Parts: sequence; C-alpha cells; structure tokens
Amino acid sequence: MNFSEEYQRKKQLVDQALEAYSFPDGPQLLTEAMRYSLLSGGKRLRGVLALSACEAGGAVCGKAMPFACAIEMIHAYSLIHDDLPAMDNDTLRRGKPTSHVVYGEANAILAGDGLLTEAFRCCLKAPDQTAAFRTAVLLADAAGSAGMVGGQIMDVNRLGSDDGNSPMMIDRLKTGALIKAAVVGGLICSDAGPEMISAGLAYGEHLGIAFQVTDDLLDVTGDVNLLGKTTGKDAGEEKISWVPLLGLDGTRKKAENETRQACDALAPFGDAGKMLAEIALSMLDRVS
Amino acid sequence: MNFSEEYQRKKQLVDQALEAYSFPDGPQLLTEAMRYSLLSGGKRLRGVLALSACEAGGAVCGKAMPFACAIEMIHAYSLIHDDLPAMDNDTLRRGKPTSHVVYGEANAILAGDGLLTEAFRCCLKAPDQTAAFRTAVLLADAAGSAGMVGGQIMDVNRLGSDDGNSPMMIDRLKTGALIKAAVVGGLICSDAGPEMISAGLAYGEHLGIAFQVTDDLLDVTGDVNLLGKTTGKDAGEEKISWVPLLGLDGTRKKAENETRQACDALAPFGDAGKMLAEIALSMLDRVS
Repeated sequence: MNFSEEYQRKKQLVDQALEAYSFPDGPQLLTEAMRYSLLSGGKRLRGVLALSACEAGGAVCGKAMPFACAIEMIHAYSLIHDDLPAMDNDTLRRGKPTSHVVYGEANAILAGDGLLTEAFRCCLKAPDQTAAFRTAVLLADAAGSAGMVGGQIMDVNRLGSDDGNSPMMIDRLKTGALIKAAVVGGLICSDAGPEMISAGLAYGEHLGIAFQVTDDLLDVTGDVNLLGKTTGKDAGEEKISWVPLLGLDGTRKKAENETRQACDALAPFGDAGKMLAEIALSMLDRVS
Repeated sequence: MNFSEEYQRKKQLVDQALEAYSFPDGPQLLTEAMRYSLLSGGKRLRGVLALSACEAGGAVCGKAMPFACAIEMIHAYSLIHDDLPAMDNDTLRRGKPTSHVVYGEANAILAGDGLLTEAFRCCLKAPDQTAAFRTAVLLADAAGSAGMVGGQIMDVNRLGSDDGNSPMMIDRLKTGALIKAAVVGGLICSDAGPEMISAGLAYGEHLGIAFQVTDDLLDVTGDVNLLGKTTGKDAGEEKISWVPLLGLDGTRKKAENETRQACDALAPFGDAGKMLAEIALSMLDRVS
C-alpha cells in the first residue's frame, strides 16, 4: 500500500470512529451542531498522526483511537470558535457554511464548548486507563493557556507583532502544541518508552512549525476552490504571518528546513517511522 | 464554629487556592482575563460543597482542593460564555462589568475556553492520581453534552418550553449536574464507599433543583444590589422559569420540598453530614 492509500485508510478509520461516536444523552440540537462541524470532512491530520505514532511505537493503531477522536474534537471546537464573528468572522470552512452561519452564534459557541468537554470525556473513557489518564493530561496541557488557547489569544490580539519571534511563538502554541500532542499521545497509547517519546516530541515540534509556515504560504498562494476556505485573509487583516517576515522564498525554505528536521528526528524509530516521515513530506507538497 | 463561620472558612480556603493557582506559562492577557472572572468573589458554593463532602466522607478537606478549584473554573467559564452578547448579553455580574465588557468578545470567549481546559488540567494534576482520574471523568460528564452544556443549549433555545417537565430537565442539566458533581467529587477525593456516593448523589440531585428553583424565585423577588446581577430578566426574555408554572407560593414550596429531600438523603453520613445539610438550608434562606 502506498503512502496516499495508507493515509486514506487511517483517515477513514478516524472518520468512521467519529461518525459512530454518539454524544450520549445530549439534546438533539447540540449533538447535531457538534456533529456538523466534527464530521465536515477535514484532513484528519491530528487523528492520522496519533494512529501513525501509535503504530510507530509498536502497537496496533486502534489503541490510539479514543485519543485520536478526542484530539479531532479539540481541533473541531477550535475551528468553530475561531470562525465566530467576534474572532475571524469566517463564513466558509471546508467549502461549507461555518457553524454560526448555520446554527447562530449562541449555538456555535455552545457546540464548541461541548466538543472541548466531550474531547476529555472521550479520551478519559479509553479502555486502557493508564493511557487515558496520561493522554488527558497531555491534551489539557496542549489545548490550555500554555498551548492552543494561549496562541489564539496572541494571534487575535496581534500580541508581540513587532517581534520577529512572535510568529514562531504563536505557531508553537496555536497549531504546534496540538500537532505535537497528537504524536506524543499516539506514542503513549502504544506504551512507547522515553527515547521514542523524546523523538516524537522533536518530530512533532518541527512538524507543527512546518505546518503553520506552509499554511501562511497557502494563504498567499493558495486556491480558494482547493482549500475550501477564504484565502488572502492574513494580509487583509494584518494577521501575523511568516510571509512578510521572510518573503515567499524564505518562507518556503523555512518550511523545507523544518520538515527535514522533523524527518531527521525520526531516526530512533527506524523503518517504523516511515509513515510519520511521509506525512511530514506530504504536507510540504501542498506548497511545492 | 457556627455554620456561617465554617462556610466562610472553607470559602476562603478555596479563594486562596484559586488566587495562588497560576496558569502556567500562558500569555499575560489570557491569564489576566481568566483571573478577572475566576477571582471575582462568588459564593464558591461548588468549591465549598466539594470540601464539605470530602470531610463528610471522612478525609481532611484539603484532599479535594484541586478538584474544588477545577469545578470553580468550570463554573467561571460557564458564566463568561453565558454573559456573552450572543447569549444572555449581560453586562453586570457580581456587581462588576462582565468579561466581554472589559476584554472584548473574542478575549472573553477565549478566557472561557481557557478556564474550561485549565479546569481539566488542574483536576488531572492532583497528587492522588486515582482521585484525579475519577473526578476528571465526573467533571467531563457533568459539564458535557449530557450535563451543563446540554442544559444551556436547551435554555438558550427555549427547547421544550411547552412541556411542564422542561424546567426540571433544564435545571437538572444546566445547574444540577455541576452541583451534584461537586458533592460526588468531594466524596471521591475522600475515598468514600458506594453507600456514601449514592447518598451524595441523591443529596446533590435535590440540592441542584432547589438551587435553580430559588434562583428563579430570586429573579422575580430579588434585589439587584444584593444579588449583584440584573434581575427580572427571565420574564423579559421569556426564559423558562418555575415561577410562571407554579406561581410564587408553589415555587417556594417546591424549593422547600427539594431542600428537605436533600437533607433526608444525608442520613448515612450521620453527624458528619451536618455541614452539607446546613448548606442546603442556607440556600433556602435566600428566599424565605
């Protein structure tokens, strides 16, 4: 099976698990609004990373499924809240109207709150209680004030926008923290040892930066029809981006450099790290 | 020490623990916005319930402190999001301008998201890992789609407003779930056995309903200066309330009845349940 087929296979496993996950006993409107955003056909990068890391750590990928679903719920919640009128005010996401356009602002806020809470519920109820506990701590660290929410508040308020380091800082927190957690959480679910966890941390760190750097590039060079979301918004809204800082070529080089470092970090996994390396390279393909 | 002094002592312990809790490594603006709402001087009912239940279960109340802080963070997040323009559009809470008035809507949304995530982080990092795990599951159940967020979406959308049972249903989810979790979580932290947990569940269930019923009464009869929040909003916005359903006297009787059932449920604790009984009775005092 080639890389693309293997990615699709894992993506489908995540999609199926999320589709089958019912939010137990909640009101229908909330369940519907949560599922609208959760099942709207994203790349499932974080979920696939978790499953692939679990395999790289030597276990069957299904062991990481509750965690993979949880991290996709966290990602979905963050997109719903990012798209709100008070934030990015985006009406289009993955080619579909955003949550607040369909359900109204109040329900979109609550759907996000629900998905964030249900993510912990899903993660904590994994059959392996030790992994459930450790991955829940990881998720809370990655999504909390020193992670994703922290990065988001810096981004929204253009904090430190005069500082050359700030895109790095914001990328690390806003996008990088969750991508890194996906990798490390998958390894935890495989019961990997400290050397593998360290390698996974380094891989995830560089991958997270590479991801945001290519995202900044795509905002400038991307095609709205392929991306399914509005492009050119960063410049229009003076969002902090790598492109004005490094130029198009410099930004592309940075993405390549971070991707190479991500792949280099996978050495301790040997052949078992191949899928993770190919994921990193495929992300770079988006902009080359 | 009489009841009022004991309540104040426990409230101060919770206040001090929350004051000392730093949100590690987060951006200053996020920490500031989270602390603004978290430290704005509420009654700390949920925190005090957790500490009191822990004592009723036979342990020192400090064992429940990380959980007590976590549940106060969840409560604080829910108030920030409830007050948003898209929800209740409230500008005054505990006599102070609400989060979105001070920090703007985007930051208020993120402060709520941060507090919700940090609640799990705080709870999961309690020294007793078994209790940390069990109380985190409890929190996720109570705050999730089958709990607080579920109740909130029913309330916001006036779901089932033609149905006599709906205030009961909404109260159970929106307010009751978290109050019940405070009691049960405190008992879990004390390592209480199944009989005590069952008794705590019954107590928390009736207490939660009594709380919401008295809140509905206070919205009609309360004094804005004493409450520190806007009154008379329920009628103005056709919020689902017990008062139009049962009348003032009927609503007061319902509050008394639920409070009595809450106290009756405490029998298995013997004298150790006295503080929990007095908390229930003191809540009723607000409206008699």
